[in-house]
Amino acid sequence: MTNAPRFTPLIASLPATVPFVGAEVMERASGRPFAARIGANENVFGPSPKAIAAVQAAASEAWKYGDSESYDLKAAIAAHHGTTVEHIAIGEGIDGLLGMLVRLMVAEGDAVVTSDGAYPTFNYHVAGYGGVLHKVPFKGDHEDPDALIAKAAEVGAKLIYIANPDNPMGTHHRGEVIARMVDRLPEGALLIVDEAYIDFAPEGTALDLPVDPRFIRMRTFSKAFALAGLRVGYAVGGKELIAGFDRVRNHFGMGNVAQAGALAAFQDREWLGHVVGQVAEARDRIAAIAADNGLTSVPSATNFVCVDCGQDGAFARNVLNGLLRRGLFVRMPFVAPQDRCIRISCGTEHDLDLLASALPDALAEARG
Amino acid sequence: MTNAPRFTPLIASLPATVPFVGAEVMERASGRPFAARIGANENVFGPSPKAIAAVQAAASEAWKYGDSESYDLKAAIAAHHGTTVEHIAIGEGIDGLLGMLVRLMVAEGDAVVTSDGAYPTFNYHVAGYGGVLHKVPFKGDHEDPDALIAKAAEVGAKLIYIANPDNPMGTHHRGEVIARMVDRLPEGALLIVDEAYIDFAPEGTALDLPVDPRFIRMRTFSKAFALAGLRVGYAVGGKELIAGFDRVRNHFGMGNVAQAGALAAFQDREWLGHVVGQVAEARDRIAAIAADNGLTSVPSATNFVCVDCGQDGAFARNVLNGLLRRGLFVRMPFVAPQDRCIRISCGTEHDLDLLASALPDALAEARG
Repeated sequence: MTNAPRFTPLIASLPATVPFVGAEVMERASGRPFAARIGANENVFGPSPKAIAAVQAAASEAWKYGDSESYDLKAAIAAHHGTTVEHIAIGEGIDGLLGMLVRLMVAEGDAVVTSDGAYPTFNYHVAGYGGVLHKVPFKGDHEDPDALIAKAAEVGAKLIYIANPDNPMGTHHRGEVIARMVDRLPEGALLIVDEAYIDFAPEGTALDLPVDPRFIRMRTFSKAFALAGLRVGYAVGGKELIAGFDRVRNHFGMGNVAQAGALAAFQDREWLGHVVGQVAEARDRIAAIAADNGLTSVPSATNFVCVDCGQDGAFARNVLNGLLRRGLFVRMPFVAPQDRCIRISCGTEHDLDLLASALPDALAEARG
Repeated sequence: MTNAPRFTPLIASLPATVPFVGAEVMERASGRPFAARIGANENVFGPSPKAIAAVQAAASEAWKYGDSESYDLKAAIAAHHGTTVEHIAIGEGIDGLLGMLVRLMVAEGDAVVTSDGAYPTFNYHVAGYGGVLHKVPFKGDHEDPDALIAKAAEVGAKLIYIANPDNPMGTHHRGEVIARMVDRLPEGALLIVDEAYIDFAPEGTALDLPVDPRFIRMRTFSKAFALAGLRVGYAVGGKELIAGFDRVRNHFGMGNVAQAGALAAFQDREWLGHVVGQVAEARDRIAAIAADNGLTSVPSATNFVCVDCGQDGAFARNVLNGLLRRGLFVRMPFVAPQDRCIRISCGTEHDLDLLASALPDALAEARG
């Protein structure tokens, strides 16, 4: 009796890969904890004290299911974006929202366009629903709006993905550039604008268009709001599209503890400004550490910095491994030529002291 | 320009229904909060103080993504069930796990078997992936193992769903009855045993078989562990089947706050015993209140009691509406003949005082 699971043909065809290996998974493999956790673009400066208090207060109420409509949270988000709750979907982070969106739109064989080296979790979801992914190269260190639009027209894409600011390079386009993409969308293509890092970016980076059925914008509480451990994200989009999420989502999937924490964080704009300032300082420090080692870094509109190791991907991988061996959790871009870089998240002063001390040795080792 | 979303044909065919209308949604509709929240089988007696403390301690660490493998939690669960972490999947409640399982197994047109009137969220997921649902009637107030097996053989089902104890009736089968179902499964059918309410049931209700590829058992932290607001559930099953979840799940979907709370709750067996005792007392009290009003109730192995209103579904619906108008959040079974009952969750003493005071009037109104 074999009793192999009778997976659907699509599921049986999927590889057993994961988009990212988590920090704890690496710690268990190595048998020791990281000294600096600056690899997953988490926000080490922490959530608003008001969000912490809200989570703590909600803890004893955790016997209740969360509001299945996340109404208060949605209302606050809608007000902030000058729209109504019918245009807001809440999900388990942008990852969860991307998964649902792909499910809504992509049947087996449907075309989807993204950039080569862009967010792998999006690609994971597209593969998971049988979509056919078409990738265009970055242009320098930026995602390439013209190439994305041209490819979408060529293949009849249902979805186009762009992150602004971009991950893993940390670069950004002005909001007008994204607005022009919307105007030039091929018939029937939906533009996904992933604004996970928007709060760290210069004024004018956010897409400044009223809600429109041609695009959907995604935001998260995992970055500037420092609540990755609660897993809340939201999407702003056309009413019919947003209503689609209700046909497939886990209606009681967003707990009351997460809703309470996210709402308190969202309302504390003072803390947000404070944290964004700390991130900017850490960004400068990472660039300075790179310069001290004779390396350049890619100007960043996010809470991480790509340090150009000056050679190819194999060399950068060696530098990365040297840092990992020294207890620093860092990551790097997946594809050439971006993989000449290592990607370092904004850490505390102590984290970056460790980086400053480990980088020269890791570089020397990689060179030697 | 209409710009209607280009949903997949399957998604476009889905109705805009939700499996359950949440308590907060009803409160917003009526404009006032419920006085007693005894409709969603939540555990009003609350989570372990150690779980509350763990959530509170984790709050300031919420900037970190949770361990993508939920390793510590899985290890504790595996030890409890006498198996290994490779046999455990963690998900966003049983709802989330059921959604993933259906996605893994059910392609459009595949047959699935459940009981008419059983858990609607399972049906929602089956419809959401295009499965064809075949329902067999309850036998009296119990799900009918023989009928489920016979129907599965007849239609070539890939999945068979049974909840033990059952929701919405609160009845149970001995574990041996479920074990006999496993032995009689048609070739290629996977049995889902939803044990959400198992901690409230008499000894001998749990399926007492070693892990086996023919069945998957689901448990939740939302009921006896009183952590519905964190949304954590787990599945125990064959290694290959469990590995399948990793191909589709949101790998960082379980936050560190939820993992910390669930682990602490799971380990506090003393609190579990305490809460189960409180639930048993409340169950007796609900039955006594029913008896005081000349009504019988269905013996329950869960944290809710079905009170038989003694007439048809329309009458029970009137009683239910009378209770709702009096500020009591309660629900009722969806289909006949179970819908002769209203379903009342175990509440606090105060909750049940309100029930005792409201039920005579609600009954009189419905009769009048």
